[in-house]
Amino acid sequence: MSVVTQSKPAFSANAVDRLIDATAADMAKVNALILARADSHVEMVPELARYLIESGGKRLRPMLTVAAASLFGKGTGSAINFAAAVEFMHNATLLHDDVVDESDMRRGKPAARMVWGNKASILVGDFLLGQAFMMMVETGDIAALGVLSAASAAMAEGEVFQLAKTGDLSTTPQDYAEVIRAKTAVLFQAACEVGAMSGGADAPGRKALARYGLELGTAFQLVDDVLDYRGETDTLGKNSGDDLREGKMTLPVILALADASEAERAVITGALGDAEASDDQVRSVVAIMERHDTLGRTIRQAHAHAGAARDALNAAPAGAMNALLADVVEFSVMRLF
Amino acid sequence: MSVVTQSKPAFSANAVDRLIDATAADMAKVNALILARADSHVEMVPELARYLIESGGKRLRPMLTVAAASLFGKGTGSAINFAAAVEFMHNATLLHDDVVDESDMRRGKPAARMVWGNKASILVGDFLLGQAFMMMVETGDIAALGVLSAASAAMAEGEVFQLAKTGDLSTTPQDYAEVIRAKTAVLFQAACEVGAMSGGADAPGRKALARYGLELGTAFQLVDDVLDYRGETDTLGKNSGDDLREGKMTLPVILALADASEAERAVITGALGDAEASDDQVRSVVAIMERHDTLGRTIRQAHAHAGAARDALNAAPAGAMNALLADVVEFSVMRLF
Repeated sequence: MSVVTQSKPAFSANAVDRLIDATAADMAKVNALILARADSHVEMVPELARYLIESGGKRLRPMLTVAAASLFGKGTGSAINFAAAVEFMHNATLLHDDVVDESDMRRGKPAARMVWGNKASILVGDFLLGQAFMMMVETGDIAALGVLSAASAAMAEGEVFQLAKTGDLSTTPQDYAEVIRAKTAVLFQAACEVGAMSGGADAPGRKALARYGLELGTAFQLVDDVLDYRGETDTLGKNSGDDLREGKMTLPVILALADASEAERAVITGALGDAEASDDQVRSVVAIMERHDTLGRTIRQAHAHAGAARDALNAAPAGAMNALLADVVEFSVMRLF
Repeated sequence: MSVVTQSKPAFSANAVDRLIDATAADMAKVNALILARADSHVEMVPELARYLIESGGKRLRPMLTVAAASLFGKGTGSAINFAAAVEFMHNATLLHDDVVDESDMRRGKPAARMVWGNKASILVGDFLLGQAFMMMVETGDIAALGVLSAASAAMAEGEVFQLAKTGDLSTTPQDYAEVIRAKTAVLFQAACEVGAMSGGADAPGRKALARYGLELGTAFQLVDDVLDYRGETDTLGKNSGDDLREGKMTLPVILALADASEAERAVITGALGDAEASDDQVRSVVAIMERHDTLGRTIRQAHAHAGAARDALNAAPAGAMNALLADVVEFSVMRLF
């Protein structure tokens, strides 16, 4: 997943900066808990875990958890545990994904697997997942545990589905929607939903925040998949064109294959799934995408989901935090420009 | 982990056969739940999961869970969910271990990673872990969830510790004890403890079964580590000498290195961690182990833990199930002969 630079002066970055400010007190507790629970008498565990966790991600998911809790009144208590658990689940997924995708870089640094190896990355991911569940259990909130454990299973299922579809030219936009729902949007949904629950939300409020997270996460992933073709390697924290080289069937390539001429199709399939595809090949594929406006169509889908995320907030308590969460949606789409 | 053949006519196999009979009604429910929860709309998930789950393991851990529950009176209800969850946790670990150890065989068949690849094995392992937690959550028993989530984190930590110690000639018997506690005994302990809890055990009863599981699991792993050097490939379901070739610092090799002459040490270190070490090299190492009685000393440690497991049962309700669980301990050590 790509990360924008903090220095970007866009409106969107401001909204996230304001979220960082608004959640600072809670996030200080979350960060302390994260550090404490990444500890182990087995040295390699905290070394590897902290390398990843402290590598400059924005911690958007745990911020959403504590923000959702404070939206309903209670920003502390179990929300802190859930926020740390969500971040651990996310980082466990990143560790395993980088092994599965054979990624060399993550957040602008060598991926953990390049430093400690695939084996340690798999096992430390498992450790973080176990610690995440321990933190959830400590809250005693069995309903929220249900939300997060279902998310955990769905995320893995989505990753398997994506793997099964790797390089599969018959992948449909519906298949893609299912993949991004499971691998990305479900955790955003769970992060917001358990935040709302721990904040004391009633059923409609909980449902509103779940919907907000799902739509936000979907917009976020759609933009991510555009950035993989349009972004600069420096800004992405990984290599532009990685998805193409890994054979990932994201919406820009699915739509391009559907509309491509025979010659264009040959250019795309010649690079798709070829780890050695050149930057020139990637540029040729991007040119085809621009010709058929598949990056633009993907962005417009992202905007539609962003709108749905903002709409969902209408059913949640009004006020400054509600307005801020609406602004954060912009971040998910504005980081394109 | 090795599996004995069902046809073995030893006393030990009889105890496990009697456990199979005694838990048959509960295990029918457990097995139905396992099959249902290994399902997914993503075809690769149930294919891979069932390949492993149905490959002939004895399901000793879930049998212990339902047996422990019935020892205290209630063999059904939440015990069924916990038993299935324990088996999923075990199989998730096997999938990841086989990737980490680069194992080719498991239970006498090609390992799942040889059929579906490392990537699918990692992700389906994650899926099984998520499903395990969902089944636990459904019981609403937060205390038992705490036991199992702590076990999950400890198991991964133990695997990392083992990885860090791979080929490390300074590994001590204490390091080894910590590795096998975390990677094997903790799950046996949790399986028995949550079984007792769901069966309605009081605090001393719960503690007794936890101790029983811990000691049984320790004996089980000690014997496993002896079998790796003494077993026949046909019976093991994997290759004899694998631990040596993988550089695993198990007690037989740790004790041998401590007592070895300079020449013997050279023979051991020449094969340790060398994936290409010949059967002749393995035989030479085993000869050194026999000379210093390190396999015998490991077996005697296993017997001591087996005795402690039986002793623990004194604090649990007497009766036929208690006697059967005591007999099952024999299985863990008698499968050597």
